[in-house]
Amino acid sequence: MDVLASLPDNRAIRGNVPICTNSLEGFLANFESYLVDRAKYCDHAVRELAVQALMSGGKRIRPALVHACGTGNLAVSKNLIKAGAIVEFVHVATLVHDDVLDDASIRRDRQTVYADRGATAAILLGDALFAHALEMASEFPENEVCRWVATATRRTCSGEIQQSFLRGDFTLTSLRYRQIIEAKTAELFSVSCRLGSHVAGLDDATSALACDFGRRLGLAYQIFDDLADVFGREADFGKSLGRDLAHGKVTLPTITLFSKLSNFEAARLHETLLNSGREPNPEIVLEMIDLMRTHGVHEECRELLDEELSAIGNTLSEFTDDTIARHLGDLRQVIVDRVAILLG
Amino acid sequence: MDVLASLPDNRAIRGNVPICTNSLEGFLANFESYLVDRAKYCDHAVRELAVQALMSGGKRIRPALVHACGTGNLAVSKNLIKAGAIVEFVHVATLVHDDVLDDASIRRDRQTVYADRGATAAILLGDALFAHALEMASEFPENEVCRWVATATRRTCSGEIQQSFLRGDFTLTSLRYRQIIEAKTAELFSVSCRLGSHVAGLDDATSALACDFGRRLGLAYQIFDDLADVFGREADFGKSLGRDLAHGKVTLPTITLFSKLSNFEAARLHETLLNSGREPNPEIVLEMIDLMRTHGVHEECRELLDEELSAIGNTLSEFTDDTIARHLGDLRQVIVDRVAILLG
Repeated sequence: MDVLASLPDNRAIRGNVPICTNSLEGFLANFESYLVDRAKYCDHAVRELAVQALMSGGKRIRPALVHACGTGNLAVSKNLIKAGAIVEFVHVATLVHDDVLDDASIRRDRQTVYADRGATAAILLGDALFAHALEMASEFPENEVCRWVATATRRTCSGEIQQSFLRGDFTLTSLRYRQIIEAKTAELFSVSCRLGSHVAGLDDATSALACDFGRRLGLAYQIFDDLADVFGREADFGKSLGRDLAHGKVTLPTITLFSKLSNFEAARLHETLLNSGREPNPEIVLEMIDLMRTHGVHEECRELLDEELSAIGNTLSEFTDDTIARHLGDLRQVIVDRVAILLG
Repeated sequence: MDVLASLPDNRAIRGNVPICTNSLEGFLANFESYLVDRAKYCDHAVRELAVQALMSGGKRIRPALVHACGTGNLAVSKNLIKAGAIVEFVHVATLVHDDVLDDASIRRDRQTVYADRGATAAILLGDALFAHALEMASEFPENEVCRWVATATRRTCSGEIQQSFLRGDFTLTSLRYRQIIEAKTAELFSVSCRLGSHVAGLDDATSALACDFGRRLGLAYQIFDDLADVFGREADFGKSLGRDLAHGKVTLPTITLFSKLSNFEAARLHETLLNSGREPNPEIVLEMIDLMRTHGVHEECRELLDEELSAIGNTLSEFTDDTIARHLGDLRQVIVDRVAILLG
């Protein structure tokens, strides 16, 4: 049932009328209806593509962060669902463009808009989704909402650009890698928490704490995702492995590998990679994954990720609201569980 | 001299402090400095590309509309320049993406970001420019500004998508063509007038009149641009001719040609085009341009455009503020002059 559609309008005060209890399930059920409703706002030509992109089985982790920060003991409001839709529209827009950049035909076991309808449709659809996200943001009476979303979107693009320009640079440091994923992924996680906190009217200190939690969870999530590209099984993660390496994208496993090689081995591998251009050929990719196994890169990455997740867990005790802490803890646990499946 | 940089901050009230007299020249000089300053807000990786795209010799017709509606007898304020920058950032973002879609290596006699740095850089740069435009919009205290800009951006993308999906459809009607260019081009012209009116605090009736003027000027401008693609000389317009036709993009000259052919000739041409796929080969393009000359398409299009421009001229008498009417009239005259050069 589309509870939202029956409400009279989508503005501020009325937007805070409760529409279901504060369970994540209730929130997500209403959220999914709302996404489709909003896609229907789009002109005819865009609508079908927008629904295809928005409904392609995402994990909805960003809207879940909005929910975690935005309910506490409050019921779910229309504004909270709208806040969730804003971050999901931005996220899906970046995915639609990523598929063009990565020449990706499959995402989450489904054909991408890019493969189905071509680069032109995918580029323009991404643009329309970005614009629509900002339109939703501008429906909040406080223009901070627009500013937060626009700034996070710009930084997300900037992280992508940095990563793209550094493709094939196998001297990338761990610090630079973190700066890139902080912009590319953690910004949007953090702004999800900010929007949720804003709708719930949390005090500044709690809101800042929530944003910091989101930022750190985003970092951990991206590290996990980068590890899955190397150490995953295709069946578990629905995408082909070693793609990042094959595209010359340098992530934690590669950085860790270089830190473990002797100077001589590292110089030899650098030379091989240099000779193969920005995109290493499949033999080199396989050789690198083999070297990672031999040098225990898997174990070291796992330790590092465990430490990150454990530190994130510790921050939960700083929240004075137990419900928020529990909801955020549940989301952290989702990543902990996926790490366990991935890295054993 | 960068007058803006010396001002203490970029928010509302202070933003309305006058910084130069109300001449278009003064406005544009300050506007150009401001564009570069805003590009410098971008992260290091994006900055250089943003400057390259923003400073590639555009005609600045949208910022000039902001100026025309936003000054009257008022001096130019920082907010007015910011409003001009917002519409120019959106416009340049669409151009950067268009170059990817059209595989265009040259624009205004310069190499495009796409040709220079590749599709990935161009797609992500466009995204970052869109986001930056919305960030500037969110610096106005009234969130309508964000909403207007986001909605116009979404409709602009929607127009582009419609045109892209209808490539190779040579049965396109004149009505549908107008709907497409209204979304693709006239929306941003119209919102330029809205932003100028807003900064100047014009009354609702004058603002509505200005938006209507902008919308109609946008339509005429796009019709002119589409005619230039067929009837222009490369030396005058800095781009190769017949590109739209070669990409299967159906515009006014093609629609007019079909309306002038006999049923038999039209059917034969439709068949030839159908057999050549979505992108007609160069021989067919040349044959169509020849047919247009033979059937007086040039003259008919010129008449139609003259009528549009003349009707737009008549609306100027409805403005009670003479200065606004004069500034808007000057912009209409720019197009009238270019039409005279193009169509004789």
